[in-house]
Amino acid sequence: MKKTIEVCFSPKLYEDRVTDGNFIVVIVDILRATTSICTAFKNGVKTMIPVPTLEMAKEYKEKGYVVASEKDGKVLDFADFGNSAFEFSVENVKDKEVAYCTTNGTKAIELAKDADEVVIGSFVNLRALSDWLIEKNKDVVILCAGWKNKFNLEDSVFAGVLVENLIDSGKFSAECDSAQAALDLWKTAETDLLGFIEKAAHRHRLKKLGLDDVLEYSFTLNTSDVVPVLKDGRIVCETGNGG
Amino acid sequence: MKKTIEVCFSPKLYEDRVTDGNFIVVIVDILRATTSICTAFKNGVKTMIPVPTLEMAKEYKEKGYVVASEKDGKVLDFADFGNSAFEFSVENVKDKEVAYCTTNGTKAIELAKDADEVVIGSFVNLRALSDWLIEKNKDVVILCAGWKNKFNLEDSVFAGVLVENLIDSGKFSAECDSAQAALDLWKTAETDLLGFIEKAAHRHRLKKLGLDDVLEYSFTLNTSDVVPVLKDGRIVCETGNGG
Repeated sequence: MKKTIEVCFSPKLYEDRVTDGNFIVVIVDILRATTSICTAFKNGVKTMIPVPTLEMAKEYKEKGYVVASEKDGKVLDFADFGNSAFEFSVENVKDKEVAYCTTNGTKAIELAKDADEVVIGSFVNLRALSDWLIEKNKDVVILCAGWKNKFNLEDSVFAGVLVENLIDSGKFSAECDSAQAALDLWKTAETDLLGFIEKAAHRHRLKKLGLDDVLEYSFTLNTSDVVPVLKDGRIVCETGNGG
Repeated sequence: MKKTIEVCFSPKLYEDRVTDGNFIVVIVDILRATTSICTAFKNGVKTMIPVPTLEMAKEYKEKGYVVASEKDGKVLDFADFGNSAFEFSVENVKDKEVAYCTTNGTKAIELAKDADEVVIGSFVNLRALSDWLIEKNKDVVILCAGWKNKFNLEDSVFAGVLVENLIDSGKFSAECDSAQAALDLWKTAETDLLGFIEKAAHRHRLKKLGLDDVLEYSFTLNTSDVVPVLKDGRIVCETGNGG
């Protein structure tokens, strides 16, 4: 019996999923939370604490944590740095505990916390994540963080390539329409991923804010083999080149 | 200034839409509510009353209305007929008032009732609907009824061809990611629409129930020029070949 793959294009669609029982949730927020989290682990961060509100981020700062926080794409004054993947450098994060507050990504992590396991997905750790999921051999729900509860192209097309990898393993089937649609979007995008993402509304929003320097990096596959997972409310990494 | 087009892939995503002010909502439930409603008007029905619950459908039956009602694809015992487009024949519906209860479609109609105008979309009235929307020249929200709040391929791919028609008019732009994704799905599907729909989960569900005889009809474009709209809680048709 093959394991199933379901895709939720928005956190709003998570509660109506058909998958239940024992399953793994893959959190996807390509621009920028999950790309940045993978980058932090690649650069040796000890742990990341996903924080849903600015107030909680401030509390972590007062307790002495390094804090990454932004609102609507802008770094907050109390934070050490913002959410761009490039901020999570070896200098900024190696061996540190980082509290990380984002608009969309951490809310999705919060939503999925009762799943068997919650894992962080992005283009930069795609192959490592795929291999880890194939090894785990459980049903998978890919939860796209979206943008303010809306469908977005970058998370959806990532869901598509992950669906493709899992199906190619021979161990998974994707019967839900959203997984089929994600796969079709990926097939449309794969020969020119950055060109495809030119169409994404969020990409234009980032460009307006002058924050689009991480785009090429965010859509480059397999630059890291980390597989960050949620354990007791914190993100940790037991595998890959984390440090 | 071009008018905008936004696509909601599920009723769950409607409240987080960005479109506000004066806009038209297009309800889409290809399998089968909106295809059947268009067929009924093509065959001369006087009015259709969308009914959200089985209890209300029973009440309409007791008041002497013709009732079309099914649950999970099966005709209910008190109903005159079910939801297949082929049931809405001239013999069954001409000059009649039909109360129509469906699992997904009427809930979406209910949700959108505060919009400026609510109109019924399906492949069978695509060209007439497109021309009507272009003439109206207002912002458009395409609301896919989906299946139990989930994304589905047939409604999404219809959203895509409607987006294409509206953009081709030169009067509309589609900036939201969901409209772009719908358009890409349509471009993948258009050379073999029925083949594409083979992938849809709901289509397999219908096949299991022996209800897939309307599939070819439901995915044939422009067999009717009706444009059914919601007026005071009822669906009526002021245009096209309605009778």
